Amino acid sequence: MSVVASSRMVLRVQKFGGTSLADAERVRAVADHVARVHRSGDDVVVVVSAMGKTTDELLRLAYEVSSAPPPRELDMLVSGGERTSMALLCMALADRGVDAVSLTGSQAGIITDTVHTRARIIEVRGDRLRSALEQRRVPVVAGFQGVSVDRDVTTLGRGGSDATAVALAAVLHADVCEIFTDVSGVFSADPDVVPEARRIDRLSYEEMLEIAATGGRVLMLRSVEFARNYRVPLEVRSSFTWEPGTIVTEEDPSMEQAVVTAVTHDTSEAKVTVSGVPDKPGIAARLFRALADEAVNVDMIVQNTSIHGTTDISFTVPKADLSTAVSVCERLRGELGASEVHSDDTVARVSVVGAGMKSHPGVTATMFETLASEGINIDMISTSTIRISCIVREHEVERAVRLLHRAFQLEVPGEHRHPGRTGSLGSSPTIPR
Amino acid sequence: MSVVASSRMVLRVQKFGGTSLADAERVRAVADHVARVHRSGDDVVVVVSAMGKTTDELLRLAYEVSSAPPPRELDMLVSGGERTSMALLCMALADRGVDAVSLTGSQAGIITDTVHTRARIIEVRGDRLRSALEQRRVPVVAGFQGVSVDRDVTTLGRGGSDATAVALAAVLHADVCEIFTDVSGVFSADPDVVPEARRIDRLSYEEMLEIAATGGRVLMLRSVEFARNYRVPLEVRSSFTWEPGTIVTEEDPSMEQAVVTAVTHDTSEAKVTVSGVPDKPGIAARLFRALADEAVNVDMIVQNTSIHGTTDISFTVPKADLSTAVSVCERLRGELGASEVHSDDTVARVSVVGAGMKSHPGVTATMFETLASEGINIDMISTSTIRISCIVREHEVERAVRLLHRAFQLEVPGEHRHPGRTGSLGSSPTIPR
Repeated sequence: MSVVASSRMVLRVQKFGGTSLADAERVRAVADHVARVHRSGDDVVVVVSAMGKTTDELLRLAYEVSSAPPPRELDMLVSGGERTSMALLCMALADRGVDAVSLTGSQAGIITDTVHTRARIIEVRGDRLRSALEQRRVPVVAGFQGVSVDRDVTTLGRGGSDATAVALAAVLHADVCEIFTDVSGVFSADPDVVPEARRIDRLSYEEMLEIAATGGRVLMLRSVEFARNYRVPLEVRSSFTWEPGTIVTEEDPSMEQAVVTAVTHDTSEAKVTVSGVPDKPGIAARLFRALADEAVNVDMIVQNTSIHGTTDISFTVPKADLSTAVSVCERLRGELGASEVHSDDTVARVSVVGAGMKSHPGVTATMFETLASEGINIDMISTSTIRISCIVREHEVERAVRLLHRAFQLEVPGEHRHPGRTGSLGSSPTIPR
Repeated sequence: MSVVASSRMVLRVQKFGGTSLADAERVRAVADHVARVHRSGDDVVVVVSAMGKTTDELLRLAYEVSSAPPPRELDMLVSGGERTSMALLCMALADRGVDAVSLTGSQAGIITDTVHTRARIIEVRGDRLRSALEQRRVPVVAGFQGVSVDRDVTTLGRGGSDATAVALAAVLHADVCEIFTDVSGVFSADPDVVPEARRIDRLSYEEMLEIAATGGRVLMLRSVEFARNYRVPLEVRSSFTWEPGTIVTEEDPSMEQAVVTAVTHDTSEAKVTVSGVPDKPGIAARLFRALADEAVNVDMIVQNTSIHGTTDISFTVPKADLSTAVSVCERLRGELGASEVHSDDTVARVSVVGAGMKSHPGVTATMFETLASEGINIDMISTSTIRISCIVREHEVERAVRLLHRAFQLEVPGEHRHPGRTGSLGSSPTIPR
């Protein structure tokens, strides 16, 4: 199974993360792979992250010299990490007879807005990349960085290197954007929690979005959205085993979809409940505007139908934002006419994701029955067309993941659950994250 | 004694080397100084080198991944070192309430030729620097690097950060270019060899050029030449004691010059002698063209008047170039009609430098007498209007330096030797290199 037919020349964007380039030995291993692909006749554009813990070390230095480093200077500082890895990779490629050329974000034409440390790409000028490809050279581009419309170095925030890779793949109309990492793909659950979790061969963008949004750590939401919007086929692969990984692409209407593809979990959020709120228009708007003004990142929101004229509003926020969220709610309590504000940071979320859920109404019932049968209480529920999430007790979440993984038979090879799909899964050695 | 009158606002270019920025503590110390100068009302442009051993570490990585790293990628790699230090220094300045802005070589408008790893500055576009200064900001510029006319990152080779500082001082018409380092100035001899060596208060460009060319390691020849050509006053100072250092500027015709200012020595060269060469036109030209074609860097050349129709040609080369030089000479021996080629890598050079030498003919005699009286044999002699150099045995050179330092009374405070000069020298703590 492959994204592209092997008989014609293809253009691959290959992104290598920090663990893939952790030291000189890893740089040489990556160079071996890129050289092999390039010699096979494919065109390759490489995108690199900073080596290993480089970025962390630079940030440690920053806070040693300053209590509040200016964002512009933070960007100038940390963007150096990718320069080091791209220059080293080009040297290793040159040693293997591959004509490679390193390009900073700016040189690769990644134009961003001026929001330092979390800039957005607003344009990619691909002319320098295209001319390198025309000469059969391998451009090696610094991920995670760009140049702002004010000519300053910017960085793209978390998952920024993936975003660079997807953006380049989009503008160059690449056949595939391969995200090389230290795991061999996207799994049906976290292998640390579910040892029998399987690597998923193929996912739709929508499934990947839900997995990324609910705890799957392999790809950032933002890069998947970007890939979906520009129809860039992604492949998540291991740079340690080099085996085929998980392909993320558009839904293939000729295939029946798996009912459930993955079980995810997330322990990074806390819950806030504002209870006894009068059920009248504008209350929720007032509350969530105030939270947004304080930059609190609200995730799930649940509000029940009111029965006695008052209702309870519950929502989840990252644990780091909990105290801000609670103080906003307490401040607004009188104005909203709410009776109480509760918070709970011992919750966790478990979710099941699957594109086939749309046409299989029994999934929700199976999920609830599975949890109930083992005495796991559900605190909040939220659903999309292809996902069901439940808030449970944090200490019960790993058990919930294992139960659901078994209930939906995700340990069974793909042919069984994915009728009409081809390709052997075989054994898939997992490298736990 | 100061380059600039303190009553008016001045523009200072301040360059800090790697030891001045070796760690977070040193970065904070430099920020304290820059902030103090800026608060006093002066305008400051800072030029930084890479922190401590950063460049060496990057080069070690390069040779771990490649046997022959392409020069373009070496430049991309090592230019990252200055980015780190400039971003950190800007953060530390921000912490002290100083509005600083880091600029890469490219952002600072340093345009170079395309010769990677030893590029030459061909233009400095100072508009971005000027607009920062107009807003009373402190530009912190990455030394040692520029952008080529092909839009590639280049580095300027050894002494490149000093070259950046002098170039910016020239284009901005700065009042002074202060080179901060780990020694407190230019000394009358290497303090490691001559403990009573004194810091020199003031030197002419010509004297500094001769000192740099004959073993003084504080400033590179190239930066001094650049400063002289653009009449940029230099001050070599300590970033550890912050005391006034050595000022390098144009000769002040109102002052009498010291006969001898410094005794320098250099053990990095070897000697080659081609003997029995027919004394006819074109022989030397043929020999030195062949050496230049092999990129052998010839320094001193001595040829005696021929007495019996043949002559001996001796020259010095860096020890690293010796085997190449010898093989070139051996190859040409037949063609030149030479009888023998000798080489000797156990030689060293001792020089005395002083602008007043021009009008004091006795210096040469004193030098030769001093060496002869202690049984030190002179192998080769070469002179300029303000310098005399002798090749001696390497094991005798430090004794020669001490003898000459005493013979020319360089340990005596400046008032005695520099009639008409002002300023107290007091005690000058030396930080040995």
